[in-house]
Amino acid sequence: MGDLSALRPLWSARGVAVIGATDREGALGRLPLDFLQRYGYAAELVPVRPDGGRVAGLESYPSVVAARAAGREVDLAMIMVSAARVPGAVEDCIEAGVPVAIICSSGFAETGAEGAALQASVVARAREGGIRLLGPNCIGTVGVATGQVTSFSPLFSGEHTELVPGPIGFVSQSGALGYGAVSLAFARGLGLGWVVNTGNESDITSVEAMRAIAEEEGCRGILAYVESLTDLPGLRALTATGVPVAVLKAGRSDAGARAAASHTGALAAGDRVVDAALRQVGAVRVDDVEELLDVGDVMTCPRPGGRRVAVVTTSGGSGILAADAVEEHGLTLAALSDATTAALDEIVPAFGSSANPVDVTASVMSNGALFDRTLDVIAADDGVDAIVACFCVLTGQDVDDVVASLERVASHSGKPVLVARTGADHLAPEASRRMREAGIPSYPTPARAVRALAALCDFADAAPDAEADVAHPAPSTVRGAGTAASTPPAPAADASEAELKELLAAQGIPVPAGRFATDADDARAAVHECGGRAVLKAVVPGLVHKSDAGGVVVGVTAETAGAAFDRVVALGGRVWVEEQVEGGVEALVGFAPSPLGTVLTVGVGGVLTEVVADVALRVLPVARDEVGAMLDESRLGGLLAGVRGAPPSDRRALVDVVTRLCDVVADWPPGFELDLNPVTALPQGHGVRVLDAAYVPPEESP
Amino acid sequence: MGDLSALRPLWSARGVAVIGATDREGALGRLPLDFLQRYGYAAELVPVRPDGGRVAGLESYPSVVAARAAGREVDLAMIMVSAARVPGAVEDCIEAGVPVAIICSSGFAETGAEGAALQASVVARAREGGIRLLGPNCIGTVGVATGQVTSFSPLFSGEHTELVPGPIGFVSQSGALGYGAVSLAFARGLGLGWVVNTGNESDITSVEAMRAIAEEEGCRGILAYVESLTDLPGLRALTATGVPVAVLKAGRSDAGARAAASHTGALAAGDRVVDAALRQVGAVRVDDVEELLDVGDVMTCPRPGGRRVAVVTTSGGSGILAADAVEEHGLTLAALSDATTAALDEIVPAFGSSANPVDVTASVMSNGALFDRTLDVIAADDGVDAIVACFCVLTGQDVDDVVASLERVASHSGKPVLVARTGADHLAPEASRRMREAGIPSYPTPARAVRALAALCDFADAAPDAEADVAHPAPSTVRGAGTAASTPPAPAADASEAELKELLAAQGIPVPAGRFATDADDARAAVHECGGRAVLKAVVPGLVHKSDAGGVVVGVTAETAGAAFDRVVALGGRVWVEEQVEGGVEALVGFAPSPLGTVLTVGVGGVLTEVVADVALRVLPVARDEVGAMLDESRLGGLLAGVRGAPPSDRRALVDVVTRLCDVVADWPPGFELDLNPVTALPQGHGVRVLDAAYVPPEESP
Repeated sequence: MGDLSALRPLWSARGVAVIGATDREGALGRLPLDFLQRYGYAAELVPVRPDGGRVAGLESYPSVVAARAAGREVDLAMIMVSAARVPGAVEDCIEAGVPVAIICSSGFAETGAEGAALQASVVARAREGGIRLLGPNCIGTVGVATGQVTSFSPLFSGEHTELVPGPIGFVSQSGALGYGAVSLAFARGLGLGWVVNTGNESDITSVEAMRAIAEEEGCRGILAYVESLTDLPGLRALTATGVPVAVLKAGRSDAGARAAASHTGALAAGDRVVDAALRQVGAVRVDDVEELLDVGDVMTCPRPGGRRVAVVTTSGGSGILAADAVEEHGLTLAALSDATTAALDEIVPAFGSSANPVDVTASVMSNGALFDRTLDVIAADDGVDAIVACFCVLTGQDVDDVVASLERVASHSGKPVLVARTGADHLAPEASRRMREAGIPSYPTPARAVRALAALCDFADAAPDAEADVAHPAPSTVRGAGTAASTPPAPAADASEAELKELLAAQGIPVPAGRFATDADDARAAVHECGGRAVLKAVVPGLVHKSDAGGVVVGVTAETAGAAFDRVVALGGRVWVEEQVEGGVEALVGFAPSPLGTVLTVGVGGVLTEVVADVALRVLPVARDEVGAMLDESRLGGLLAGVRGAPPSDRRALVDVVTRLCDVVADWPPGFELDLNPVTALPQGHGVRVLDAAYVPPEESP
Repeated sequence: MGDLSALRPLWSARGVAVIGATDREGALGRLPLDFLQRYGYAAELVPVRPDGGRVAGLESYPSVVAARAAGREVDLAMIMVSAARVPGAVEDCIEAGVPVAIICSSGFAETGAEGAALQASVVARAREGGIRLLGPNCIGTVGVATGQVTSFSPLFSGEHTELVPGPIGFVSQSGALGYGAVSLAFARGLGLGWVVNTGNESDITSVEAMRAIAEEEGCRGILAYVESLTDLPGLRALTATGVPVAVLKAGRSDAGARAAASHTGALAAGDRVVDAALRQVGAVRVDDVEELLDVGDVMTCPRPGGRRVAVVTTSGGSGILAADAVEEHGLTLAALSDATTAALDEIVPAFGSSANPVDVTASVMSNGALFDRTLDVIAADDGVDAIVACFCVLTGQDVDDVVASLERVASHSGKPVLVARTGADHLAPEASRRMREAGIPSYPTPARAVRALAALCDFADAAPDAEADVAHPAPSTVRGAGTAASTPPAPAADASEAELKELLAAQGIPVPAGRFATDADDARAAVHECGGRAVLKAVVPGLVHKSDAGGVVVGVTAETAGAAFDRVVALGGRVWVEEQVEGGVEALVGFAPSPLGTVLTVGVGGVLTEVVADVALRVLPVARDEVGAMLDESRLGGLLAGVRGAPPSDRRALVDVVTRLCDVVADWPPGFELDLNPVTALPQGHGVRVLDAAYVPPEESP
C-alpha cells in the first residue's frame, strides 16, 4: 500500500481521461462523459479513442500521451476498453504519468484462471510503472460535491437523480449493489461526499479506499459494503483516526462451510471471526443495506457520554417498542432523577407517563410550550445520555412546533436526539427534510432509531482517546516480522502431545508432571512418581482421537499400571504416564488461522466442548484484560465462578496462562492450529494445568 | 366471548351513532362524522347530542333511543363523551338495542384504580344489557372497502390520505401506533380490509377482533400489534381457520424483570413463553412494524411447497446478501438440477453465475427473452419452491420487460416470486405498483424479501391440513374443566420432596427407591436396603436449597451412615434415605404458570442448569412428538446422544416420562410450579429417575 493521497484523483481529479470513449448515445464509453457534464464537473475531460473526432461534444485524442502532449491535464483515467486492450491502455497511462486509473472492463479474475492471469500481469506492470489501479470489473467513483461522476452506473441516467453532497464516504466492493445503496442514500437525503466501487480489488482494496477517504477534509464517517476482508491492521489504522466506520460484511452463510482440522477451527469459523475482529478495531458491523444507511444518518450526531436512553413518545405502543429495542441493543433506559420526574408530573397528564419511556400524550405534543419544557427537563437530567422521540401520525399542523422543539434541545444539550416517526411521509412531507437539516436523524420505527443510536454509542466507545489504555501494538508488530533471538520456536510439524507439553512448560505454561514409560515395570514406577494415581496415554504418530481408540486410561494405580501399559502400548506407539489432575473446571484454549490473522478461542472445554459449544473469539494480538472479557462472554466465566456449591476456580491463573500463550505463539509462522483442551482450572490458588495439547502445522504453500 | 358475528358492525355497520357529536370543526366529536362523509360511507349517520341541531350537516338526536324512535337505524355507537358520562351513554345504547359500541373516551383503567373501577362497572352493565364494547381509550375502527371510518385518528385528516382496500385485517391494541402503521401500509400500497384498535380491551380483546375479521369473506390474513396476550385457545382457533396471522408482540424487555420462585420460572420468563406459544399455534411473530407490514405483503402469495429458494440476481452482492438471509431465516438455497444448470449455462455469460444464487448479469436482464427463459428454467425445477429476484438500480427502460417476465412466471408456476429492489423508487416509479398489481411483493433489500418469504413458509407449514397429525385438544380441555374421577390430585401445598416422589411414583414416574430413617441405626439399615450406597436428604419444611445448607449427603455407605444421619438430622427435620443413582445425563423438567397457561420447560439440568441455561419451552398441552423436538432444541439432545465416548442415554424413556408428566399435571389447578431437577437419564435401556422434586402451590387469590 502506498501513499493514501495518491488516491485523491478518484474523487478530486483535475483532469479525467476516458479511454474507450465513444460518441454513441447510451454506450458505456459515453456515459461518464455525459454524466460529468450533466452534474457540472468543472475539470478537464479528455475522451481517448483511436480514431479521434468529437465525443459528447468534447475533443478526443488517440492516447493519453497524445492528450498530455497537447497540454491537457490528466490525473485520472477511466479504462473502458475490452480486457485484451487493457494492458495497452495501462501502458499509455504509465507513459503519460497518470497516477491512478479505474479499470471498468470485466473479463479478469471474476471469469476464471485465464482472466486472473491477465489481471495479475496488469497489476505487476502497474506496480512497476508507479500507477495505482481501481478494479477491474468496477463501475467507478464519484466525488459528489464537485459532480465528478467517473462512473457509468445507470443511477446517473435517472431523470430525477440528484447528487446529495455530504460528509460521509461510501465504499463498495459490489458495483450494482453499491450504486443501488447510493441511490437509496440520496433518496433519503443522506449526503455522501465520496463514492468508490472497488470491484476485483486487484490493487486498491476497500480498506485502502476507506482510509484515503477518511483523510479528506470534512469526512465524518465511512460506510462500506465488503465481501472479503483481510486487512485488519489497515482497518485498525482507519478507526484509530476517530472517523466512525460501519461495515456491511456479506458472506455470513459461508461461515459454516469451511472444513476445519480441529475443534478450535470449527468453533472459530469464518463469520464469527469477522464479528470479533470488527468489534476489536471499533468498527460497527451491520446486517443489511438499510441498516448501513441508518447508521450513516447518525454519524454526524454528537457522541453520547453513555448508553442511558430517555424515550419520549406520544404513543404508549411506540414507547414499549423503543424500550424493547433499548434492551436488545445493549442500551439502558435512563433512570430519571426525582427532580426530573417531579417536573414531568407537572406537565404530563394522568393518562400519560412521567416515567421513562415518557408518554407525553397527544395533548402535550399539540402544545408547543409544554413539549419544549418536557424536552428541556429530560435533556437536563445528568442521567440521560441520549433522547429518542417517537411519533406516529404526525400531521402538518404539529410538525413545525415539534421540529422546532427538537432542534432547540438537540443544539443546546449537546446530546444526540433521534426520532422515530411511524407514520406515512405524506402526512407531513416537510418533516423529514426539516429534521435532517436540524441534524436530527429520523427513522420509520422505534427499533430502527434505537439500533442506529446503539451504533452511535459504539462509535463513542471506540473513539481513540477512550481506547488509550488498551494496548494495540502497531500493525508491523502483529506478526513475527523481526523476531528477537529469545522468541520461542514453533513446534515441529509432527510434535507429539508430550513434546508440545515440554515446549509449553519451557515457556512457563503449567502442564502435569509426566514421562514416557518403557515397559510395564517402568510404568508402575512412573505411576508411583506421579503420586500413585496417573493417566496413561498412547503417543502414536497420526493418532488424533486417542480417547476414542482406547489410548487414554485414567485413574491408573500401581496395581493396574501393568495392565494399562499393555493395553496402551498395543496401539503401536509409546506410552506417556502423567500425574492425574482431579476436579477443576475444563476450559478450551485454541489458536487457529483466519484471513484476518491468528484467532484465539477461549470457552467451555472438556467433555462439554461440542455440546455446549460456547466460546469467545479474538484476533491476535489480545491484551490481558481482553482475555478476562472473553471468559465472561462465554459460559466459562459462570463455570469458573463455581456452580451449585462448587468452589470458585483459579480464574486469575487461567487469564495469566492464556495471556502468556498469546505471547508464546505470537511469532510462530502464521497458519498453525494449537488446540489445548482441556485446560483445567483448579480451585482458587491452585493454578491451571494444560491436560491435552494438539498442534497442526501451517499448510505448505503450493 | 360471544358470537363473533356480533362484532361485524365494527366494520360493516348499517347505521352509526356518534354520542358526544359536536359541530365544532376539528373537534374529536366531529371528526368521525367528517371522515365517514369524506370517505363515502353510504349508511346512516346519527349524531347524538343533548341540545339537538345539525352536526356536520346531519340532523342530530338527544339520544340513540330518540333516534331509533325516529326510525333511524343504529347498529354501532361511538361513545365520545367524558368518562363520567360513559355509563349513561352505554345505558342509552342498551335501551336502544345497539349490539356493539366503541368507547373512545379515556379516563378508565389506564389512569389508575378509580378509572379501573368505573371501567369494570361499565363492562358489568354491558354484559347484563347484552351489548359488546370496544375500548375504552381507543381510536376506533375502519371498514376500508366501504369507507366506514368510525375513528378519529388524524391519519384521516391528511390531505393526501386515501384508503387502500385489500384482503388483510389489522388489529392493534395501541391507537396511535396502530394508525401510524395503517398509514404506512396504505403508503406502500398494502391494502387492508378491516382495522380495529382495541385500547383497554375491557370486553372485546385483540384475539376476538382478529377471529371476527377472519370470518369475513375475502379475508386473506391478519396483522396484529398486541401488548398483552392471554387467549391462546382463541389464537389457536383463529389459526385453525387457515388464515395466516402475524403478531408484533411488544414488551419483550419486561421478560427478565419478573421475579421467579424457581429456576424453572426464571428460565421460562415471559417473553420466551410468548415466542413458544405463537410458534405452537402457527402464528408468525415479528419484531418491528415494518416487518409486520412486510409479512402482510406476502400473505396473498401462493404457499410454497417447501423452503428451497432460488435467488436470481443482476448483482453478485445482492445474491450474497440473499444467501446470507436464506441461511439466517431457516430456509435453504435450492440445489438446482443438472438440467437446470445446463440450461442456464446456455444463457448466463461467463462473468455471471449459473449456480444458485444465479447471477444473470445486466446483459441478460436487458434482454427480455433471455430473462424470460432464465425464470422459466428455474421455476420449472422441481427442487425450487420459491424465487427471490434481486435488482439494484432498476431504471425506466428495464422495468416493463422485467415485470412482465416476473408476472408471467409467478402466475404460471404457482410458486411464490418475491423481489428485492435495492435502489431508489424514483428511478422507475411505476415498478412497485406494477409488481404489486401482479401479486409480486417487493422489498428494498434482499434480507427483507427473504425474511418475508420465511414467514410465508411458516404459514405454509402451519396450514391446518399439514397439522392434522398433531393432537391439539379443543380449547375447553386445555385446563382442568370437567376433571375425571381418575385424575391424579395435585400435591399438598407443603408437600415434601419425599411426598412428591411418592405421588409421582404412584402415577408411574420412576423415582429412586427410598424411605425415611428414624435414627442412625435405622439409617444404616436403609442404606443397606438401597444396595449399600445411598443419598441422605434433609426433609425440612421451608428448606428449598437443601444442598447449599448441607442437607444432602451423597455416596453414603453403611460405615458412614451414622455420621451422615447425625449431620442431616441436625438441620431440624426428618432424614430421607434413597438409592444413589450413578452416572447418566441430568435433565431439568419443569412446569410453571404463565399468562398463556402452564409452561413445560425441558433442558439441561443438574449442576449445569444455570451455567448452560439452555431449555426449550412449550405451553401445555404438549404432544409426545413435541417433547422429542424440545430435547433437540436445547443442548440436552446432544448430551443424551453421548459426548466424547459416553454411551447414549435412554432418550425414549425420558420422552415417555415427560409426556406422562404432562398428563399428570394437566388437571392440577393452574398456577403451580413443579421443578424436577435433576431428572437423570441412564444409559439406553435403563430408564430415567427423578432425583429431586420441588413444588410451589398456586398463589392464593387475594
